[in-house]
Amino acid sequence: MDLDVNARVKVGLGAAVASTATDLVAAGFGSFGGAIQLPAGYRQPVLVSSVDGVGTKLHLAIEWGRPEVAGRDVVNHGINDIAVLNARPLAFLDYIASSALEPATVLALVEGMAAACREAGVALIGGETAQMPDTYRDGAYDVAGTMIGLAERELMPDPLRVRAGDAIVGVPSVGLHTNGYSLARLTATSLGPEHPVADGSLADALLAPHPSYAGELASAFALPGVRVAAHITGGGLEENVPRVLPPGVGARFEVGSWTVPPVFDVIAADQGVDRVEMYRVFNMGIGLAIVVAAAEEADLLAAVPGSFHAGEITDRDEPCVVLVGL
Amino acid sequence: MDLDVNARVKVGLGAAVASTATDLVAAGFGSFGGAIQLPAGYRQPVLVSSVDGVGTKLHLAIEWGRPEVAGRDVVNHGINDIAVLNARPLAFLDYIASSALEPATVLALVEGMAAACREAGVALIGGETAQMPDTYRDGAYDVAGTMIGLAERELMPDPLRVRAGDAIVGVPSVGLHTNGYSLARLTATSLGPEHPVADGSLADALLAPHPSYAGELASAFALPGVRVAAHITGGGLEENVPRVLPPGVGARFEVGSWTVPPVFDVIAADQGVDRVEMYRVFNMGIGLAIVVAAAEEADLLAAVPGSFHAGEITDRDEPCVVLVGL
Repeated sequence: MDLDVNARVKVGLGAAVASTATDLVAAGFGSFGGAIQLPAGYRQPVLVSSVDGVGTKLHLAIEWGRPEVAGRDVVNHGINDIAVLNARPLAFLDYIASSALEPATVLALVEGMAAACREAGVALIGGETAQMPDTYRDGAYDVAGTMIGLAERELMPDPLRVRAGDAIVGVPSVGLHTNGYSLARLTATSLGPEHPVADGSLADALLAPHPSYAGELASAFALPGVRVAAHITGGGLEENVPRVLPPGVGARFEVGSWTVPPVFDVIAADQGVDRVEMYRVFNMGIGLAIVVAAAEEADLLAAVPGSFHAGEITDRDEPCVVLVGL
Repeated sequence: MDLDVNARVKVGLGAAVASTATDLVAAGFGSFGGAIQLPAGYRQPVLVSSVDGVGTKLHLAIEWGRPEVAGRDVVNHGINDIAVLNARPLAFLDYIASSALEPATVLALVEGMAAACREAGVALIGGETAQMPDTYRDGAYDVAGTMIGLAERELMPDPLRVRAGDAIVGVPSVGLHTNGYSLARLTATSLGPEHPVADGSLADALLAPHPSYAGELASAFALPGVRVAAHITGGGLEENVPRVLPPGVGARFEVGSWTVPPVFDVIAADQGVDRVEMYRVFNMGIGLAIVVAAAEEADLLAAVPGSFHAGEITDRDEPCVVLVGL
């Protein structure tokens, strides 16, 4: 019986949602479903979509007064999940639920989503807001969202093109992104938001927004030698890289060839987690792993600022991912 | 740190998900985003999408041992929300979260989703499963999902075609669908699952799956005189019908011209809720309200079995929805 609360909360969101309208938004069709025209010019259009939550990071974002970060996170996570398939993100729909919807928190979440949508040219075309006191713990929120995009079939990355001898190029992460927060929250509780990490605070490090890699991936896929790309999320390199490799090959990463953001050392030391486990849970500094023909690696490194040589594809797939120097 | 739990739960879901694969599913692109080819033959394709949760009904479905119902509900709710825009549903993505994922419950939820997807020719192309003990109450689950479909722009319903004098045709609901369960659960607790309702039990009545109206809506939109359709969900006729009406007109419903499912009388009597409030919360027997040119009403009634004359469009829009005989 919270219709009025929901309606009121939604009204306050209109400006944020409207700010994301793109030329493709098809207005005037009522409000049951959101609608966008599909851009013209695709020979074999493939719809690519992904659903993601923010998980436990949302707790910390609300507890430390930065809920808008979680809004950005859920959008950018979705952008990256479809951009690794060379899809152009077009539309996003969100789901926000809580024991009791606090209008300022919902607004901050949606404003964070809208900001990330605007930056990527994505229209926020739908959302559901639910208040369920018997489902959620007091004051707890959950946020999830679905990103929808379009790809040209013949330009989508094909894992079967990956060959032993291909190079792996990494793109830096800015920190945890949205994964590993069950562990990170223990450090948050133990050290507090003001604990210094590099030039900032633990709050800055743990609440850095998940970046969008749409630009990096568009630059990468413009090169004919780029085979596949993996978005490194929960489960780290070991779980995410195999998702884009064909049978018969493996990935060999040279640990030490890239910079690990200092927040990971803070968590490992505080919680007494060994390096092997850290690499199983976190991205450890690699936000994207891009497989490229060795002859074009230099072109890729030049096309994506900040990218680095991270390893190579091998002809042994057991184990699929080997971390050398760990 | 529940990666293993998540992975294990997901593995058991493979058969259910695979059972929904349609000819359009684009396989072989890794697993970050789901992909489907867009069907050919659209002149101006419009992507239509909606996100929905099941809300409080999920509690009852789990408590009374029928979680698969909630899976069907979330899919069919999404189908109806886009089918009222004359969109063909193509793909669905789900989000399931809980304090502790119990594999049998997750499997039943996904099998319910898959069954509804198969019936509608929808591919289940993505899902996220999250275990968050600090967010959800012990044993509580939440389920949401996003339906994606395609419409031909010139065939989408246009509210500006609605005229005073148009007829309103109702399509029967089977009960509460997915709305009004905060109130209905009080009755569930007070009377118990075995309480008789018509020829069945209260459990049968409260856990009847939300039906898909895709067939009814496709038949309706084949008639040139059909203007718009509203899916009657939370907020009943009063909140949902205005979503598809232009300024300057109103909707007049003749209460008593359709059959109200007996479960609504049981709830009203048990909780002491007056009829005005009942119509504000529940669909009260109307699952869809379709506006049609008066001259074609008979054709629509013939094209959609079970449909009935429910009212007409008037030239006064304040209040927008009038329930005559309430």
